[in-house]
Amino acid sequence: MLSEFDLIAHYFTRPVRDTARIALGVGDDCALTVPTPGMQLAISSDMLVEGRHFFPDAEPRALGHKCLAVNLSDLAAMGARPVAFTLALALPEARAEWLAPFSAGMLALADLHRCELVGGDTTKGPLNICITIFGEVPPGQALRRDAAQPGDDIWISGTLGDARLALAGYRNELALAPDTLSQAAPRMHAPTPRVALGTALCGIARAAIDISDGLVGDLGHILKRSGVGATLCVDDLPAGAALATQERDLRRRFALAGGDDYELCFTAPAERRGDVLAAALQAATPVTRVGRIEAEAGLRLTDAAGAPIALQLASFDHFASP
Amino acid sequence: MLSEFDLIAHYFTRPVRDTARIALGVGDDCALTVPTPGMQLAISSDMLVEGRHFFPDAEPRALGHKCLAVNLSDLAAMGARPVAFTLALALPEARAEWLAPFSAGMLALADLHRCELVGGDTTKGPLNICITIFGEVPPGQALRRDAAQPGDDIWISGTLGDARLALAGYRNELALAPDTLSQAAPRMHAPTPRVALGTALCGIARAAIDISDGLVGDLGHILKRSGVGATLCVDDLPAGAALATQERDLRRRFALAGGDDYELCFTAPAERRGDVLAAALQAATPVTRVGRIEAEAGLRLTDAAGAPIALQLASFDHFASP
Repeated sequence: MLSEFDLIAHYFTRPVRDTARIALGVGDDCALTVPTPGMQLAISSDMLVEGRHFFPDAEPRALGHKCLAVNLSDLAAMGARPVAFTLALALPEARAEWLAPFSAGMLALADLHRCELVGGDTTKGPLNICITIFGEVPPGQALRRDAAQPGDDIWISGTLGDARLALAGYRNELALAPDTLSQAAPRMHAPTPRVALGTALCGIARAAIDISDGLVGDLGHILKRSGVGATLCVDDLPAGAALATQERDLRRRFALAGGDDYELCFTAPAERRGDVLAAALQAATPVTRVGRIEAEAGLRLTDAAGAPIALQLASFDHFASP
Repeated sequence: MLSEFDLIAHYFTRPVRDTARIALGVGDDCALTVPTPGMQLAISSDMLVEGRHFFPDAEPRALGHKCLAVNLSDLAAMGARPVAFTLALALPEARAEWLAPFSAGMLALADLHRCELVGGDTTKGPLNICITIFGEVPPGQALRRDAAQPGDDIWISGTLGDARLALAGYRNELALAPDTLSQAAPRMHAPTPRVALGTALCGIARAAIDISDGLVGDLGHILKRSGVGATLCVDDLPAGAALATQERDLRRRFALAGGDDYELCFTAPAERRGDVLAAALQAATPVTRVGRIEAEAGLRLTDAAGAPIALQLASFDHFASP
């Protein structure tokens, strides 16, 4: 069996690519990075646990991609440009057949975003994957949750609900046609972090969050921290291609409270609509306007005709669910 | 039961202390820090797993201290000044009786080092504690593992082996007198990260590492990465107060390959001995000169008379041990 140090060296140590930004990579007590003068440092950390965030038999290449993607998504939601990340990994055993594709999936996505693996830790234990990611954002331009203002438009990137639809298929909550499941599955296994959109929205959007626990719950964080309310037009929500073929109530529920979407929900002044659309074009990422921030607290849902609708929704809470 | 969000808010969210360095703390997609102009960023990550790094019944206040201490020790070994850290926590259940002392122990040590908790994650799962820590160091002054040169003195901070002695007592590997165990135990439960010494050694010492897996193994990392060898005088090693009362072979073994010491092992040019001692005085941290870096590869051990000695030693490897 490989020793801990062999493991790290073999699958997770590569020569530093960008020596101007990374002064020292994996292999010392600390990594050393060279901050860009005048920029703020954005930091986020996510821990993924087997059986809770992914299935025990998750395909390792996709899992490697997804673990980094959810962290890149946090940078995107802040408008930050990725710089580097650390990986801490608890593994029940050290198997090359798992480590090789896991590291390949993760490092391929890292390369795509010029985000370097600079350090971390490996230990024996129940499978647990913890990534901490660093990015840079110009001072005052970060897209914070507390910055929404009454009158702002509410926008969503991409589409919602296909990741939740795939999960429902795997769990046999729904009987999905094989084609539907195979169409939805990539949204669950290999989310696309909206990094280019996030950085393009700096200076245009006000508040942003990435939708990991479901739109209603995550938008709720913006509303709470900004001290505002909102109205969402439920029928304007962009359903994923697979979800769009399902019946209306399911479509609404999974778009509103699906989870695992990793799209951005952001607000911007109504007079910046043209700039938002230009940023979306520059980032090659579709965006949809779905509602409006209001001074009155609470979240109101309407249908396409503007009539209020009521839905039973549950956001995802890691400790509340069994 | 508390929800995930309540947990985070209650035990781990505090107002930012140093608003000049931390622009945004816990509660958004990312934290935002303000790097000091001209400094490099030092980053390290450690993951601690129940049953491997600590006993299942570990006292939570000491555990909170230790988890942060091992990360601060990595900054110390780089000569970096602490700035901030993130905490990702997998918990089987959310119990206030555990969380309150755990966070109190961790945050007390954080305050001592002006190191702010700026973010993280909480999830349900087998107990796993992952901290990523950030510090700052002047360019070119970081104490790297690859910087040792033939002729350098080898130094050790504090004392060695008492943490390993306490572990041997708990595991009943040795029958220790109750007084001996109670004297050694704090070195295992509440290590002191040598942060002040590490920063004081910047510009004086060449290479450094913190001793977490045992002196021989950790010094071995310096030797390998620097392409050098060394001779250690085993009888010069500063044994802990409890270990010093034990018989010679045990004293030697636990000082050389105990683990969990969290002392610094560093090298410095022989002509800087006065500066090393002045730095140690400034940091109020005892240091002991224990050997010398040599061009010839390999590690040679001698006794007080300079005669070579051979010892069977095993460094700690998380995957090699059962």
